[in-house]
Amino acid sequence: MGAIGGFYGGRLAHAGREVHFLSHSDYEYVLQHGLRVDSCDGDFHLPHIHAYGRAEDMPKTDVVIVGLKSVKNHDVLPNLLRPLLHDDVVVILIQNGIGLEYDLQQLFPQLKIIAGLAFICSAKTEPGHIRHQCYGSINLGNYSCPDERFQAILTDIQSAGIQAQEVPYLEARWKKAVWNMPFNGMTVALNTSTDKLLKNPSTRQLIYDQMKEVIGAANALGVDTLTLEFADKMMQMTDEMVPYSPSMKLDFDFHRPMEIEYLYTRPIAEAREAGFLMPKLAMLEAELKFIEAHR
Amino acid sequence: MGAIGGFYGGRLAHAGREVHFLSHSDYEYVLQHGLRVDSCDGDFHLPHIHAYGRAEDMPKTDVVIVGLKSVKNHDVLPNLLRPLLHDDVVVILIQNGIGLEYDLQQLFPQLKIIAGLAFICSAKTEPGHIRHQCYGSINLGNYSCPDERFQAILTDIQSAGIQAQEVPYLEARWKKAVWNMPFNGMTVALNTSTDKLLKNPSTRQLIYDQMKEVIGAANALGVDTLTLEFADKMMQMTDEMVPYSPSMKLDFDFHRPMEIEYLYTRPIAEAREAGFLMPKLAMLEAELKFIEAHR
Repeated sequence: MGAIGGFYGGRLAHAGREVHFLSHSDYEYVLQHGLRVDSCDGDFHLPHIHAYGRAEDMPKTDVVIVGLKSVKNHDVLPNLLRPLLHDDVVVILIQNGIGLEYDLQQLFPQLKIIAGLAFICSAKTEPGHIRHQCYGSINLGNYSCPDERFQAILTDIQSAGIQAQEVPYLEARWKKAVWNMPFNGMTVALNTSTDKLLKNPSTRQLIYDQMKEVIGAANALGVDTLTLEFADKMMQMTDEMVPYSPSMKLDFDFHRPMEIEYLYTRPIAEAREAGFLMPKLAMLEAELKFIEAHR
Repeated sequence: MGAIGGFYGGRLAHAGREVHFLSHSDYEYVLQHGLRVDSCDGDFHLPHIHAYGRAEDMPKTDVVIVGLKSVKNHDVLPNLLRPLLHDDVVVILIQNGIGLEYDLQQLFPQLKIIAGLAFICSAKTEPGHIRHQCYGSINLGNYSCPDERFQAILTDIQSAGIQAQEVPYLEARWKKAVWNMPFNGMTVALNTSTDKLLKNPSTRQLIYDQMKEVIGAANALGVDTLTLEFADKMMQMTDEMVPYSPSMKLDFDFHRPMEIEYLYTRPIAEAREAGFLMPKLAMLEAELKFIEAHR
C-alpha cells in the first residue's frame, strides 16, 4: 500500500466499502494502528483495516486496485494478481504511462481491465500515514471491461465521495501523459522542481514544446479530443501549484528505479509506429536512461 | 593568453616568427619565466617572450590571433582589438561557434577576418605552461580577407610547422560544430565525459542524432560537402580519444560562464531562418540555459 492505494483504498473504506489492503513494509504497523489519511478534504483515521502481507492470504474481491510502480509490472505484478484472479474480477491500474493495459492483457487475456488516471498530490510519509496535499480526481478509461460493469464500478467509486469520471481509454492515458512526460523527466534531468522549470523562460518553452509533442502523438494515434488548449491548461495549473516534485523525481531522490519504460519508451515507440516523432521527449528518454545507468 | 593563444602563438614564436602575447593573469610570470609548451609533438620552452598586460601597450602587428572565450566577444573583444587595428590587420578568430565573424564585422566593417577552427586537446595547466595532449591541426576559413593575403598567412602558419589547411568558411565553422554541439553541452547536461556518453547506447544514439541535426542545418545553409560520413568519422575519432572534457565542461566545472550563445543559440537560430529545425540541440540549449541560471 502506497500513496495511491492508501488514499483511494482509504477513502473507499472510510465510506463503508469492504476494502482489503496488501501491505508490505508497513504490514505490522497498519495491523496495530490502522491507516491515517491527512487530507486537504478532511483528515480521517481508520483504526482497523483488513491488511495482508501476501496476496495469497487475501480474499478474492470484485475489484483489484493496483497502485504499484510500473517498474514492477513485469516481475512482480503478475504474481501479486494471480491469487486474486477469478472470472469476474476487474483490475483498475492506477499507474502512469502508456502500454500498461496492453501488456497485462497479453498475460491474462480474459481479465477485465480499467485504466485509472489519478490527478492527485499525495505521499506516504510514514508507515500507515498518507498525506493528501491537493486534487484527487480520477479519470477512468475502460480498456476491456463490459460497459455495464464499468458503469457500476464508476458509480460505486463516485458514491464513496471520490471525484471520478469516465474518459475514453486512449484519451485518458494520453491526457495524463501531457503533464507526466515533460515534468517527471525534466525535474530529474535538471534536478529541480516544477516551479523552477516554469520560471525559467528557456525551460518553460521546452516544457510547452514537449507537451505539444505528446498532444501531437495522441492526435496521430487517433485521440482527436486533445488540443493545444489542454497544454495551456496544464501550464496554468502547474503555475498555480506549490513547487512540486513529480513521482519520478521522488523515485530518483530516494534511489528507487524510475518508470522510464512506460512513461517514455512505450509512448514514444507507439507514436513512432503511427509515424509521429517526439524528438525532445526521445532525447529526455535517453538522458534518463543515462542517469539511471550512472547513478 | 590561454591554451589556444599559448599553443599556436608559442609554436609560431618557436619557429622564429615575431609574436606578441597579450597576457592577463600570468603576465608577471611569463615576463620572468617565459612560456613552456609540453606537447605530444615535442616539448619546448621559450625563455623570453614579448608579453603585455594591456592591448594598448602592444605594437601593431600584421595578424591578430584571438583565442578568447566567445562569452567575451561582446564586452571585452572590441576593446582589446581597437588599439591593434590598422588598415592592413587581419584577425583570426580561433573560437568555437557560429556567428562570430558576422558580429565582429558589424562592429568593424573594414576588418579582414579569418575563422580558425582548431582540432586540438590542450590546456593551460599553470601560469606560462601549456599542455598539448594531442591533435593540433587548424582549419582556416576565409571570411573577409583578400585571397592573396589569406594564402600568404596560411603558408606562413604551415611553414611554422602547424598543420593548417584552407576550408571554405561556412564548411569550416559547421564542420567543427558537428563535434562541438553534441559533446560540449551533453557532457555538462549529464555531468559526464565523452567516453561515458558513447558507451551508453541511449546517449550514443542521441549524440549521433544531434550530429545529424548539425549536418542537416549545414546542408540547409548551403554547405553540401558535409555528409553523414563526417558524423561517423567524429564518432569513431571520439571513441578512440581518451575520456575527454570538452571546453564547455571545463568552463562549467570551474564555474566560468558557458559559451551557450555562439555554440547553440546562434547556429540554431541561423538554421531555423533557413527552415531547418534542430529540436534535440534546441532542447540542449534550453537545459544549458537553465543550468547556467541555477548554478
